[in-house]
Amino acid sequence: MTTSRSVGPVVPQRVAFDSPIALACGMSLPQWELVYETYGTLNAARSNAILICHALSGHHHVAGYYADNPKNLGWWDNMIGPGKPIDTNRFFVVGVNNLGGCHGSTGPASINPATGEPWGADFPIVTVPDWVRAQAKLADHLGIEQWAAVVGGSLGGMQALQWTIDLPGRVRHALVIAAAPKLTAENIAFNDVARQAILTDPDFHGGHFYRHGTRPTRGLRLARMLGHITYLSDDQMAEKFGRKKRLGAGSYGFGVEFEIESYLRYQGDKFAGFFDANTYLLMTKALDYFDPAAPYGDDLAAALSRAQAKFLVISFSTDWRFSPARSREIVNALVKERKDVAYVEITSRHGHDSFLMDDPYYHAVVAGYLNRVAT
Amino acid sequence: MTTSRSVGPVVPQRVAFDSPIALACGMSLPQWELVYETYGTLNAARSNAILICHALSGHHHVAGYYADNPKNLGWWDNMIGPGKPIDTNRFFVVGVNNLGGCHGSTGPASINPATGEPWGADFPIVTVPDWVRAQAKLADHLGIEQWAAVVGGSLGGMQALQWTIDLPGRVRHALVIAAAPKLTAENIAFNDVARQAILTDPDFHGGHFYRHGTRPTRGLRLARMLGHITYLSDDQMAEKFGRKKRLGAGSYGFGVEFEIESYLRYQGDKFAGFFDANTYLLMTKALDYFDPAAPYGDDLAAALSRAQAKFLVISFSTDWRFSPARSREIVNALVKERKDVAYVEITSRHGHDSFLMDDPYYHAVVAGYLNRVAT
Repeated sequence: MTTSRSVGPVVPQRVAFDSPIALACGMSLPQWELVYETYGTLNAARSNAILICHALSGHHHVAGYYADNPKNLGWWDNMIGPGKPIDTNRFFVVGVNNLGGCHGSTGPASINPATGEPWGADFPIVTVPDWVRAQAKLADHLGIEQWAAVVGGSLGGMQALQWTIDLPGRVRHALVIAAAPKLTAENIAFNDVARQAILTDPDFHGGHFYRHGTRPTRGLRLARMLGHITYLSDDQMAEKFGRKKRLGAGSYGFGVEFEIESYLRYQGDKFAGFFDANTYLLMTKALDYFDPAAPYGDDLAAALSRAQAKFLVISFSTDWRFSPARSREIVNALVKERKDVAYVEITSRHGHDSFLMDDPYYHAVVAGYLNRVAT
Repeated sequence: MTTSRSVGPVVPQRVAFDSPIALACGMSLPQWELVYETYGTLNAARSNAILICHALSGHHHVAGYYADNPKNLGWWDNMIGPGKPIDTNRFFVVGVNNLGGCHGSTGPASINPATGEPWGADFPIVTVPDWVRAQAKLADHLGIEQWAAVVGGSLGGMQALQWTIDLPGRVRHALVIAAAPKLTAENIAFNDVARQAILTDPDFHGGHFYRHGTRPTRGLRLARMLGHITYLSDDQMAEKFGRKKRLGAGSYGFGVEFEIESYLRYQGDKFAGFFDANTYLLMTKALDYFDPAAPYGDDLAAALSRAQAKFLVISFSTDWRFSPARSREIVNALVKERKDVAYVEITSRHGHDSFLMDDPYYHAVVAGYLNRVAT
């Protein structure tokens, strides 16, 4: 399906920075690397570049596939490619793994030059503004003075928003999808339970599990199971699983019995098998800390008054993690500052995960917006 | 506040049954005990008795206090006492710890006569219908042929509902508060994450932690933290905690930082300090299995057609665990069968926990209903 309009085989690239990056937490990384992918062709004016920012568990492999593993499609392959909503026939698209990630960019599993061992829990906490600064260094490296657009869903959308505030001259359009201007107490509460699951796993060893030859898979699995509940909608769960029992499942015991249990445990096991627990902790903290209005007296409109970009804000009707009301907070602040903003609430059954889905109306909205973006 | 209208000092009582109780899972308990408390006086006609059914973490100590620990108030002391909504000047009120509990009734920490050791994970899974049958044995023991009312919130409300179906002649009124006719996939999902936290805690030892001298406090703590998120409303959390940081809390680390984290971890620690993990597992399974319509072709109205009781159904506006829509499913089934039902949706900020709160309107509704109940 996707191959006909696929960007085709892609190869991740790597850039090493020798100048230190100062982080919000007060620490700085002396040397650091980012892994990224690009799709399409940068035009002569270097004016057709789009940055894709990833969410909690995402990475730089956003579109296409790897030659040695054609099934390893990019996580947003349905959105990006020739003739797709983010059209690589027109745009030069960049995916990047954020600092602190576990897919190749400098992160907790990287070697701490001060110790010669993996950073582990000593890796500094990174924030959304830190990521924006790191992504700007990548833009410099690629010779991109201004992005045609910065695009992201969920935590990725928060990065797009932060770009418009922190580096307003470097982004012409921001697509802020399924995001919120800051987390609620309930959002933080879910993140904290997930973190506590990891932090209290005896195999976590204070974050230095690498040197113990262990992985806190129990904690990571619980964190992911819990996360999945908040990514799906109640309606969708009811429709897909309801109270259905798994065929052949036992009863009156604690094994898998309901289909929903089977699904969640499978998702948890799969994720715990590859994701880095320290990265999970960092990503959830970046979410909790995200609050671009804070330095502007808690006034989101004041924060966004700096923005020069035009905005497309998208929310999904059944998203209860970052509900449409949260997107409207962003829209209202932009309207107050008379910024150029389009807002669409998509009717969708898929909850927060909708931003990853191949919904024709959603894709038409993104395509329609980007078709009018000059390159 | 409560002492002036308190039932005063109370003493738990115990009854041992020597005839086996057959359980839904196919096992039976040869000998079993229930711990209970009573408040008020049973009248000569034995017609003024009210049974209080407890929820996931509740027990038999529903009202009053213990002489040696006056601060240990019953969990529903604001509702029950002389002149209170469930008025002990008129009614004889019975609180009971359910089978499988960890407050004195036969449960996983009791000795399995077959082994001479605690049952642990071998304790049979108990269901809401099992509890109703056990409670009926207690009623027999107390000489109560028919309850004036069976009352409960959450899982307790489910027991009240089950009473009207399974033993219709033995209950004149059912007060079904903050309940649902069955759990959704999302409800089950939350329960399963909680169970997995306990089951995968290395200190759980397959449920036989008693003999290892350990307790799966990490898992139980996570389960309770997660539970608390679902008991509170998003609004209430926003109002009470918002994004407030704890005074003196560090930043850019994984210690307590936001107030909501402090609250949840405190609640988790407190609960993990005393509650039995096997009981927690059993209680969540009883919730998951609860589905009184299932034996009646999934037709709740058909199930409730047997009921002879009159009903008061109460829901709370901000309860997202068992929302008002879930209570209306019960009401609609009762209306379809032309049963006598009153339904009130209380506007409350406290989410699912509202059923435990001292809300004047809520209490007036219960008082007003019970004032018209003949004894």
